[in-house]
Amino acid sequence: MRDIVPPDGELRRQIANRILDVYAAYGYEVIETPALEDLEVLVGSQGGENEKLIFKVLKRGAKLDEELERGGELADMGLRFDLTVPLARFVANHLNDLPMPFKVAHLAPVWRAERPQRGRFREFTQCDIDIVGEASIAAEIELCTATIEALQRIGIDGCTVRLNDRRLLLAAVEHHLGQLDQPDAVFIALDKLDKTSSDNVAAELARGGHDVAGVERLLESFANAELIGPPEIQAALEGTRRALEGQGISVRFDPTLVRGMGYYTGQIFEVSHPDLPYSLAGGGRYDGMMARFGAPALPMCGFSIGFERVCELVDKSAFRAAREKIAVTCSDDEELLRCLALARAKRDRGTVVNVVRRARNVRKQRDDLERLGYSEVIDAETFSL
Amino acid sequence: MRDIVPPDGELRRQIANRILDVYAAYGYEVIETPALEDLEVLVGSQGGENEKLIFKVLKRGAKLDEELERGGELADMGLRFDLTVPLARFVANHLNDLPMPFKVAHLAPVWRAERPQRGRFREFTQCDIDIVGEASIAAEIELCTATIEALQRIGIDGCTVRLNDRRLLLAAVEHHLGQLDQPDAVFIALDKLDKTSSDNVAAELARGGHDVAGVERLLESFANAELIGPPEIQAALEGTRRALEGQGISVRFDPTLVRGMGYYTGQIFEVSHPDLPYSLAGGGRYDGMMARFGAPALPMCGFSIGFERVCELVDKSAFRAAREKIAVTCSDDEELLRCLALARAKRDRGTVVNVVRRARNVRKQRDDLERLGYSEVIDAETFSL
Repeated sequence: MRDIVPPDGELRRQIANRILDVYAAYGYEVIETPALEDLEVLVGSQGGENEKLIFKVLKRGAKLDEELERGGELADMGLRFDLTVPLARFVANHLNDLPMPFKVAHLAPVWRAERPQRGRFREFTQCDIDIVGEASIAAEIELCTATIEALQRIGIDGCTVRLNDRRLLLAAVEHHLGQLDQPDAVFIALDKLDKTSSDNVAAELARGGHDVAGVERLLESFANAELIGPPEIQAALEGTRRALEGQGISVRFDPTLVRGMGYYTGQIFEVSHPDLPYSLAGGGRYDGMMARFGAPALPMCGFSIGFERVCELVDKSAFRAAREKIAVTCSDDEELLRCLALARAKRDRGTVVNVVRRARNVRKQRDDLERLGYSEVIDAETFSL
Repeated sequence: MRDIVPPDGELRRQIANRILDVYAAYGYEVIETPALEDLEVLVGSQGGENEKLIFKVLKRGAKLDEELERGGELADMGLRFDLTVPLARFVANHLNDLPMPFKVAHLAPVWRAERPQRGRFREFTQCDIDIVGEASIAAEIELCTATIEALQRIGIDGCTVRLNDRRLLLAAVEHHLGQLDQPDAVFIALDKLDKTSSDNVAAELARGGHDVAGVERLLESFANAELIGPPEIQAALEGTRRALEGQGISVRFDPTLVRGMGYYTGQIFEVSHPDLPYSLAGGGRYDGMMARFGAPALPMCGFSIGFERVCELVDKSAFRAAREKIAVTCSDDEELLRCLALARAKRDRGTVVNVVRRARNVRKQRDDLERLGYSEVIDAETFSL
């Protein structure tokens, strides 16, 4: 986990607002859900590897003492590892109060207890849009369109949407490896194709007991971008591709695209950028999830932007230029009080007037303020209406 | 804990932005800190009763097994119960990268494991500004001015700042009850004066072993707003009062104002509103806190807005009117795809065009959309450029 130090906090606020402004213009309604969910919501949600990474919250008071005594469950809640599982729980809870179809935006931190490593954080922010109650590819098409437009609005151009369908992936796997009891294990191995060599993945699948020749044919079919599976599913994927291209979006069918989560049931997608070895956003259709919460199994489809990843990529100077910043440094209490009152009168919409005591190290103070985007650092004596 | 259901999510975003825009205009820099802090940061932070309400996070993997075996500490981290303790830890960690004095804004959720009750949430949002490194009342004055301006900018007028000083409070208490080993216990009892009768507080203090006649005189001195204590501290409080009044802010000296947290060391303040039985914001000076983190004991002073409380109070219609919203309902896939493309061309800055499938219950869909602020719900057939 990490702190966000100035000027990044204000930058993040501006980036978040620009993205949410685009989503609002499409009619996505902002929701918030609690950071903590009951563990029974999070565990068994087909969250794949992420379920192993849940930060669990200790029961409190007498309840905890009781569990300790009898060796029971010590935790009753956990920090969410994504925004998708909480959304399904949310929709089930508020079904009657929501318009249907429901288009929803959700920007919030999620937590995963990963081993600390470069570029991976244990708290990070996702920015999701989802459509609940739309079974056709109109959902996929609008989610991709809105996400690409949001990225463009923060200055990230040149992205490509990589498309696949979980059902085609399963068809290809079963065509080459035979009927599978646990396709998820194969998916998890295939998900590593973008991080490791094809040989390593083949070796992992062979260790899993799969036919070596079949694995070879499977990986070769991927390399050739062959499409296997029900024609209507292929046609729908082609429909999404064509509609996005029709709007000038770069799209590529990627038969090796897996997505880590087990809950996806249909089309899946990621956004790639030529400057990055990982994707900026990912999502897909997960029609089955609502049923877990005793609600009708509404169709659901979503797209999630990795907020830290886009913040890394944006041109920060474009955001900083937005407002003029003036600092007024004062040498004593009297000056401070005089300038506080003056500044209030001078501060109009958007212009920053920062009245502050002059530091002993004037040079460092000036440098620090310039780094924070102050174009002028003036002495109190020269500050007037 | 609770979900934020539309249209409240967008309303909260707009309110947060207006407040942060005011703070930005004063030169407060936005920071973020992780929701989870090491327990040793949170425990022993003089957070008063709140320290008992920390949600603690279970250790993970082998570490947990080890602790279970030897009956050790099961938790290593906790969810923050305020933003002040994390700020002190933040400043200690980043001292060299921050301008000094450092003016900082921090809007984020905090968690307290309170018993569920009406109007109290276990996750709620605070919006803090703090000044680090300013020992004079210039800090108090600016924090109060900026907070009142932020409240005005979201349409909350008629507020009063209630002022006190922890040192005067202590002087009054010791004047009437004698030297105290644990003044915090007395403060906690006095803090209830705004929630319960003076008689109940007197009874609690008497049960605590304090002289009944002394308690009576103490409460009487409060009722008469008598000032007791070092003249220079009285003069400073008067200086804050005068400066705020000079800016047209309503101020009242309140000798019974305590603030729950034990970490306050100087002037303390709350914002009251005539329509509310509780305060909208609270803060004060806490000069000692940095020393806990092995950093120099910099002067610190802060003011925190209770975000949910101001959201309850604002006139929601003033925020909703901000953008026009049009919904286009479609009967089939073909129409949906046609309108998605059309809408994109029509969507300009600020206007919402929400393309969505027509629900079976057309009446309910229209009602739901109108409740979300849509001024027009039109059929796809009549939608054109």
